[in-house]
Amino acid sequence: MRAAVLRDGRMVCRDDVPDPVPGPGQVLVAVRACGICGSDLHFAAHGEEVLALGAKGGFGDMGVDLNRDVFMGHEFSAEVLEAGPSTDTHPPGTLVTSIPVLLSGNSVEPIVYSNRTVGGYAERMLLSAPLLLPIPNGLDPRQAALTEPMAVGLHAVNKSRIERGEVALVIGCGPIGIAIIAALRARGVETIVASDYSPKRREVATAMGAHQTLDPAQGSPFDTVTPAVVFEAVGVPGLIDDIILRARPGTRLVVAGVCMQPDTVHPFFAIAKEINVQFVLAYDPNEFAESLRAIAEGDIDVAPVITGEVGLDGVGAAFDDLADPERHCKVLVTP
Amino acid sequence: MRAAVLRDGRMVCRDDVPDPVPGPGQVLVAVRACGICGSDLHFAAHGEEVLALGAKGGFGDMGVDLNRDVFMGHEFSAEVLEAGPSTDTHPPGTLVTSIPVLLSGNSVEPIVYSNRTVGGYAERMLLSAPLLLPIPNGLDPRQAALTEPMAVGLHAVNKSRIERGEVALVIGCGPIGIAIIAALRARGVETIVASDYSPKRREVATAMGAHQTLDPAQGSPFDTVTPAVVFEAVGVPGLIDDIILRARPGTRLVVAGVCMQPDTVHPFFAIAKEINVQFVLAYDPNEFAESLRAIAEGDIDVAPVITGEVGLDGVGAAFDDLADPERHCKVLVTP
Repeated sequence: MRAAVLRDGRMVCRDDVPDPVPGPGQVLVAVRACGICGSDLHFAAHGEEVLALGAKGGFGDMGVDLNRDVFMGHEFSAEVLEAGPSTDTHPPGTLVTSIPVLLSGNSVEPIVYSNRTVGGYAERMLLSAPLLLPIPNGLDPRQAALTEPMAVGLHAVNKSRIERGEVALVIGCGPIGIAIIAALRARGVETIVASDYSPKRREVATAMGAHQTLDPAQGSPFDTVTPAVVFEAVGVPGLIDDIILRARPGTRLVVAGVCMQPDTVHPFFAIAKEINVQFVLAYDPNEFAESLRAIAEGDIDVAPVITGEVGLDGVGAAFDDLADPERHCKVLVTP
Repeated sequence: MRAAVLRDGRMVCRDDVPDPVPGPGQVLVAVRACGICGSDLHFAAHGEEVLALGAKGGFGDMGVDLNRDVFMGHEFSAEVLEAGPSTDTHPPGTLVTSIPVLLSGNSVEPIVYSNRTVGGYAERMLLSAPLLLPIPNGLDPRQAALTEPMAVGLHAVNKSRIERGEVALVIGCGPIGIAIIAALRARGVETIVASDYSPKRREVATAMGAHQTLDPAQGSPFDTVTPAVVFEAVGVPGLIDDIILRARPGTRLVVAGVCMQPDTVHPFFAIAKEINVQFVLAYDPNEFAESLRAIAEGDIDVAPVITGEVGLDGVGAAFDDLADPERHCKVLVTP
């Protein structure tokens, strides 16, 4: 079968990948859509660094060899083809999604970067029967592929404990910031302010529910707004410190942008203002299911987020294109 | 009257300070005891830096001129001498304490560093009638002077939302760490582990309620204990990052140590583990009152904390002595 794989830092399309064979509890599915995540772009460019940081942080050996092809793609929707032995699951043809985890005997493998386990940038892949969520309400599987990134936003908003009357500032309107805006709006937060240098991204932010957008090139967002909760969805050094310096006392800062470099902060300001910093990652299975429900029932319309669609042979070019915030928010791979 | 003042970076004892005159709502008191706080030592050594950081952080002009004498001392107990005009207060002779704030007309002045408002390193000072708390149960006013630093610990523990069954690690057993340990013990937390290089401080930590103490020179505390909540009560660069690297996922880190320098952290580790960092400072008036009650009723015995007592002419030498953790925890000035 065909699959796009990471080889020497570039995504290339292979047509000789063996079809995966489902074991007990597993299901072979045909991928219908898979979103390209910023973390995949980052891994393609800085895989060694990501693996080294993971090892240093004690997150275990991810067992990825960058000298061999790497499968990726963790934001997928798919159609059930065939269950593994002794596996009771949805009938063939059912459209499903799942948290990106493959259960295999007693092991639990994240579907994120692997030399072995095929991800969503492929014609077919394996999923785990107990984790499958049928896509309800006739939802387009392309939109269902947004369940995963939208769950990231929902999780960040849940961790913030924001209340409807509190002012939210979302810094960065890439896919994570956009997902946060959508979750804030779905929760009924009444003042959502979004900040991004890109006019295109500010447009998407408005379409997804921001009440006001700001261009930080025109001045700090904190000159305009006094948020109770700040969501940092950029992940570059210096930003946390700038927020700590400018935020009002008692601010809750939710850090969702993944900064891989060392960063400098001034604890004195955070102490003087009693800032709370909640670092967040991913979501739990309930949030994933809630995210699918919100999209399927129309509480969140993900259409404005999808700005492109490519086949497996277009993944390499799409990785390049995504560097330009004026061109794209979320590109779907439809094998 | 006599008062110890900061002059050219040193504490000197003056005997020509004019007696303060209480205005409406104010009360003249005789200081019975005033604890020397680490922040006073820091201000004496690095006053310019503290003032510059305060200005940069938007905390307003503290109006302190380091070229003139500076009054300090904010951990005091005192005896009521005389009320200002039209001021209803406790009768002369009443022993009291108060949060270190002076109300004056419509202004609110912290009693912390001032060229004008006398603090607790003096024979007499002004307090605000509405803020006075009588010292109950015949409590020794020297012990009542510990109300303020103990309230700092109580506040940090309250902000941590720790539950009794959760393991607490307190890094640093100076006065702030000790106050945290005391508040944890008073709350019934069942596993309190304290870490400090100083044997003397570890002894005080045990006396104040730590169930286990560790010497970080023998290895990271995280090699021995897996805390749910970590209290950072040291305030030196590098420590927050080390905690983020070693802590288990979901750790709540309460930063109570005041690090004045820039500090480097690796957000990646904090994100991957969803660490929550709550920076804390001071306390609210209810916590201050609760702290006095806990000391007066014997829930917290502050006797082990008090390691020295000096007169106003001994403040300069005491500031020097406090640099040695083997000699002192809390030194009281008894004018």
